[in-house]
Amino acid sequence: MHEPAKHQRTSELTQAHIGIIGAGQLGQMLALAGIAMGQRFTFLDPSSQAPAGKLGRHIQAEYDDELALKQLAVECDVITLEFENVPVSAVTSVGRHNQIHPGERALSIAQDRVHEKQYFESLGIPVATYQPVDSLAALEAAVLMIGYPAILKTRRLGYDGKGQALIRSAADLTDAWAQMHNHPAILEKMVPFIREVSLIAVRGLTGECAFYPVGENQHRSGILQRTEIHPADPAQAEAEVYARRVLSGLDYVGVLAIEFFEHKGQLIANEMAPRVHNSGHWTQNGAVTSQFENHLRAILGWPLGRTECIGHSMMLNLIGKMPSHRAILAIPGVHLHDYGKEPRAGRKLGHLNIVGNTQTECRVRAAQVEQLIRHGN
Amino acid sequence: MHEPAKHQRTSELTQAHIGIIGAGQLGQMLALAGIAMGQRFTFLDPSSQAPAGKLGRHIQAEYDDELALKQLAVECDVITLEFENVPVSAVTSVGRHNQIHPGERALSIAQDRVHEKQYFESLGIPVATYQPVDSLAALEAAVLMIGYPAILKTRRLGYDGKGQALIRSAADLTDAWAQMHNHPAILEKMVPFIREVSLIAVRGLTGECAFYPVGENQHRSGILQRTEIHPADPAQAEAEVYARRVLSGLDYVGVLAIEFFEHKGQLIANEMAPRVHNSGHWTQNGAVTSQFENHLRAILGWPLGRTECIGHSMMLNLIGKMPSHRAILAIPGVHLHDYGKEPRAGRKLGHLNIVGNTQTECRVRAAQVEQLIRHGN
Repeated sequence: MHEPAKHQRTSELTQAHIGIIGAGQLGQMLALAGIAMGQRFTFLDPSSQAPAGKLGRHIQAEYDDELALKQLAVECDVITLEFENVPVSAVTSVGRHNQIHPGERALSIAQDRVHEKQYFESLGIPVATYQPVDSLAALEAAVLMIGYPAILKTRRLGYDGKGQALIRSAADLTDAWAQMHNHPAILEKMVPFIREVSLIAVRGLTGECAFYPVGENQHRSGILQRTEIHPADPAQAEAEVYARRVLSGLDYVGVLAIEFFEHKGQLIANEMAPRVHNSGHWTQNGAVTSQFENHLRAILGWPLGRTECIGHSMMLNLIGKMPSHRAILAIPGVHLHDYGKEPRAGRKLGHLNIVGNTQTECRVRAAQVEQLIRHGN
Repeated sequence: MHEPAKHQRTSELTQAHIGIIGAGQLGQMLALAGIAMGQRFTFLDPSSQAPAGKLGRHIQAEYDDELALKQLAVECDVITLEFENVPVSAVTSVGRHNQIHPGERALSIAQDRVHEKQYFESLGIPVATYQPVDSLAALEAAVLMIGYPAILKTRRLGYDGKGQALIRSAADLTDAWAQMHNHPAILEKMVPFIREVSLIAVRGLTGECAFYPVGENQHRSGILQRTEIHPADPAQAEAEVYARRVLSGLDYVGVLAIEFFEHKGQLIANEMAPRVHNSGHWTQNGAVTSQFENHLRAILGWPLGRTECIGHSMMLNLIGKMPSHRAILAIPGVHLHDYGKEPRAGRKLGHLNIVGNTQTECRVRAAQVEQLIRHGN
């Protein structure tokens, strides 16, 4: 027996009750944006320590707990997720009772690097040459086609550079395959890219699309370290063309991030995340409307907010250790976002958004901050 | 037996636990700014329906409940208030155990219109001619000195135009006095002002001061309707000179708002509020750092954030009835802040911050919004 479907809702969701699968820092930042707009939140997350749990009701349950999923679905007005590695079956379950954005298809594509590449290709979006690989023999065959250097990645559940192995020559093959722990994998030709950019895109229930200025990302040990915004980036137009195809093709609702490599003046899609994204955190202090507010406006069927940047912005992740707040905040234009987590090596504890009127001003401030982070307090 | 005083604290308050007396929308907006910076909150408020209560621990108790005040003081790292009409004795109680900002002196001055005027005068800040009044006979004597028109106000507990009576001639005296219900009052000469401006000022623990661009306020039936920012307002310099005297004189820590009348090219101080203020809500979307973030940075002993405005801003209060979110948000540059309260005539339910690149753009957008609010949805 199902509750009446709410899919055909026509009323306005004022003071809406929003369900979020996952209660990490992304859930927390969504809730902070939503509570300001009069919304209430319920989170489903197995961890008793989940940062967002204190900002609403916390259903502490596994992501495949059918009863908990149904509870979330029927109690809330609309459901979303902050984390793309929830089982697709969870989204299907919720979808039986209520609206959930993004939906099954976006999630299942984003969860598998091979499906993701195939989807990009089907839309005419360039990707790196790749081959699915499910054995050492298949890897040896694939590398003959793709050449060196190449990267072997697990098809599923990879994040922050985990589950990836660089292959420079035949000598690396056995080790690389061992690192996959027999999980299905994908071999990708390494793109000698100039830079990585990401585009934060958002699409409303009515099909309205909006795009933030692209950000240029820098990683260290596979973890995003910083994103810098260039208000009139030459890659903007091409990135928007591709993102629009992805959003329309999926009939997507909400924020979606796409990472691209820039190579020989062209963009090559690397991966997408069907959710608010770390490379979009700068929008909290550097754009007219944050990605968090726009994701909520989208799933509520409200008009989207303006996505222009305000001056220049840089986002720096705070990883493993918190710098001195006093020292950091003494630098003008610096905003602290602290997720309230216990420090631990390699853990994202927060981020800093740095704003400035010019690129130089912003970079000088960021350099001061980075010096403080490196040399301690 | 007292707990050790924490006044001499030198450590950095990262992931601080902040206590707030009052849990209304100002407490909620403080908490939303603070949670983003890693802080936790406990609120003391007698109402079970207090909007901010769900953003932290809620001690439901009267403002003069000594046990509850002590609990708040000893559990939290630093205490502040969102509401200036808490008994001064509550601040004294908390102050025995821990730091509280603002302190007793600021509060006791701000709670009494006569003390407030005397304090402004002691600093050489112009005020309207006034006389304390505590009987009809005293009112008759006072009006002879002050002349018509004049305004009779209760000395204490007035807000949003409540407890005020306009006196145009001798015929109004008896009625006006009756409206004071025998409470001590103040008779003020009515200033035929051109406009009312307010300055949001902030002072850190180290004495560092910062000032936001002044806002021009419009009231209706005594309730603030809108605040418009002029990035280079001619009243800015004079307002800052006066505010700096007030802040330094009180050794004030945190955000303080001062309302001025502009008359014959000069500012006349009307009143002050020792807290974040409705006329500073535009800073959430229109300034580099919001008044809420800066109040927290101040009381934590952190450096203050930049107070410059970003383009042009207007704040419109949403009173009594919520307009259609979809219609309002379809106008570009509009940000909704909904306090999650039940609608009721005359109640502040939320506000809209409207941003634009030019004054005209901002005004055109505001006019569209006001039309929607007036003519329904």
